[in-house]
Amino acid sequence: MSKTKKIVVIGGGTGSFTVLSGLKKYPVDISAVVSMTDSGGSNRVIRDELGLLPTSDIRQCFVALAEEGKEQSLRDLFIYRFSKGNGLNGMTFGNLFLAALSDIFGSQVEAIKKTEQLLKTKGRILPITLTDSNLAAVYENGKKVVGEHLIDEPEHRGDLKIKELFLNPKTRIYHEAKKAILNADLVVIGPGDLYTSIIAGLLTEGIAAVLKKTKAKTAYIMNLMTRYGQTFGFTAKDHIHVLEKYLGKDCLDYILINTKPIPKSALTKYKKMKEFPVADDLEDSYFKVIRGDFLSKKETKIVPGDILKRSLIRHDSDKLAKALIKL
Amino acid sequence: MSKTKKIVVIGGGTGSFTVLSGLKKYPVDISAVVSMTDSGGSNRVIRDELGLLPTSDIRQCFVALAEEGKEQSLRDLFIYRFSKGNGLNGMTFGNLFLAALSDIFGSQVEAIKKTEQLLKTKGRILPITLTDSNLAAVYENGKKVVGEHLIDEPEHRGDLKIKELFLNPKTRIYHEAKKAILNADLVVIGPGDLYTSIIAGLLTEGIAAVLKKTKAKTAYIMNLMTRYGQTFGFTAKDHIHVLEKYLGKDCLDYILINTKPIPKSALTKYKKMKEFPVADDLEDSYFKVIRGDFLSKKETKIVPGDILKRSLIRHDSDKLAKALIKL
Repeated sequence: MSKTKKIVVIGGGTGSFTVLSGLKKYPVDISAVVSMTDSGGSNRVIRDELGLLPTSDIRQCFVALAEEGKEQSLRDLFIYRFSKGNGLNGMTFGNLFLAALSDIFGSQVEAIKKTEQLLKTKGRILPITLTDSNLAAVYENGKKVVGEHLIDEPEHRGDLKIKELFLNPKTRIYHEAKKAILNADLVVIGPGDLYTSIIAGLLTEGIAAVLKKTKAKTAYIMNLMTRYGQTFGFTAKDHIHVLEKYLGKDCLDYILINTKPIPKSALTKYKKMKEFPVADDLEDSYFKVIRGDFLSKKETKIVPGDILKRSLIRHDSDKLAKALIKL
Repeated sequence: MSKTKKIVVIGGGTGSFTVLSGLKKYPVDISAVVSMTDSGGSNRVIRDELGLLPTSDIRQCFVALAEEGKEQSLRDLFIYRFSKGNGLNGMTFGNLFLAALSDIFGSQVEAIKKTEQLLKTKGRILPITLTDSNLAAVYENGKKVVGEHLIDEPEHRGDLKIKELFLNPKTRIYHEAKKAILNADLVVIGPGDLYTSIIAGLLTEGIAAVLKKTKAKTAYIMNLMTRYGQTFGFTAKDHIHVLEKYLGKDCLDYILINTKPIPKSALTKYKKMKEFPVADDLEDSYFKVIRGDFLSKKETKIVPGDILKRSLIRHDSDKLAKALIKL
């Protein structure tokens, strides 16, 4: 009897959504470990007014892992965003759903478990930490910005490099996330905004140590494009250097990087935002570089809700999953 | 093969909740036909800000008819009321649920059907009309009050009689509600606030004609107590006279009236609100009077959410259902 492969996906937002959507079609055991620093939009109400951890990234994981078909209505509800009503406009239903259940069951973790049952998700969703915290960045010019959504869309010049990223207050890894990583066969990091989605989670105390301790292989999925304000001018190696800074050397076993050229039409639009394809300057090292066509053919697919609104191009769920399953 | 008995329950609020909760334990086909004039609290946002029909009474019917056990979490969610958040405080989750689904599916009726599936309700829930309308009352002193919640809690002396109740604009019966009544074996009206829950629905154009036309027997469940502001000083006969005014003579086949004395402790509290037991001055007429112990032993059972908050005593679901099934 062969053992079911256990895969942990670390991140949040569009990147995790893409990876999870692909992996769920395989007979594997999935845990999504989700960064907990999102602070914009609907999350502001969730955090400041309801006193809960941010739920937008968790909500997106639910949508990715929810059973399709029978429970489709609940899945549709989860991504629904109110566009009317004084106090409701802009709120996502999934966030309200999780907020109400958190109150009913007395904890957000219980609410997540109940929602997994209701949506019949393929896999578990685990906050990376249960501590409420804010992301802060110090740039090379000494300027400090607090709040993930402000780092995401900095008011200053976006070509400034982030010198240091930290959490205030410090957070500790959620014990179930720790257990999932320790028991995993494969840990997938990214794709996603390097600082605000990936490092934001990896800053959690205990993560680096657990990633070192686990026997799981670790794969990092390289972003397709640089992000103005975070990774302006970054090559693939620059991305890895940042990861090494926070996780230590020898932190990765595989790096998946797309080789398929990005369509001209998309490049033109990205260029206006000062964003460019991540140049592949990688060589095999303590990690193995896996090159392939990981690009989705669809461009600018806008899904109701907030996900993917920003991305013109993205990774292809199925191509990524196929490569990951082989590892 | 015996035919499944088809029962339609007309009303809204606590009364319908009680009747439906009892009936759902029997192998009968249930349709709840719900008054659509509620205008207070959460419904104000639903109506004025989201442009939908009021949903609170519909929500209560869902809670009454929802499958218990497996879908308990969804049922708990349905009655959940936010107690924090600037724009959320006081909103019931069930109303938000129905509002979001109405937008997703493009109609409130579709949203209700989807919710029936999600909650696995025993029976259907049908708005009595799909027209948005306000209830208006003219009192014996000529004063006019518009809005169900204002008629419910009038600022003037509550011993004034309502001379005329009407809908502005006029509404027409929803064709599926009509069909349900025409195909029914039994129609149950009440219990519930005579004007704001019962007549509010019966004012819908087409209802009186359909009730005349159907071969179904019609049973009215007499309220236990008078309501200051609506039925101050009313005997049982007075209730029937009001029903006759709006439905015509010969509109009822059975009247169920409680004979079990109401506990002294409850009477004292009601007296402070100028509310008293409805005196039984009924005699068999074109209708048959069914007397019995229909009183719930529980007093002041406060259920999370807004239902029953007001009632100290109420009808017993099981006793009512048992009597109704025998008809």
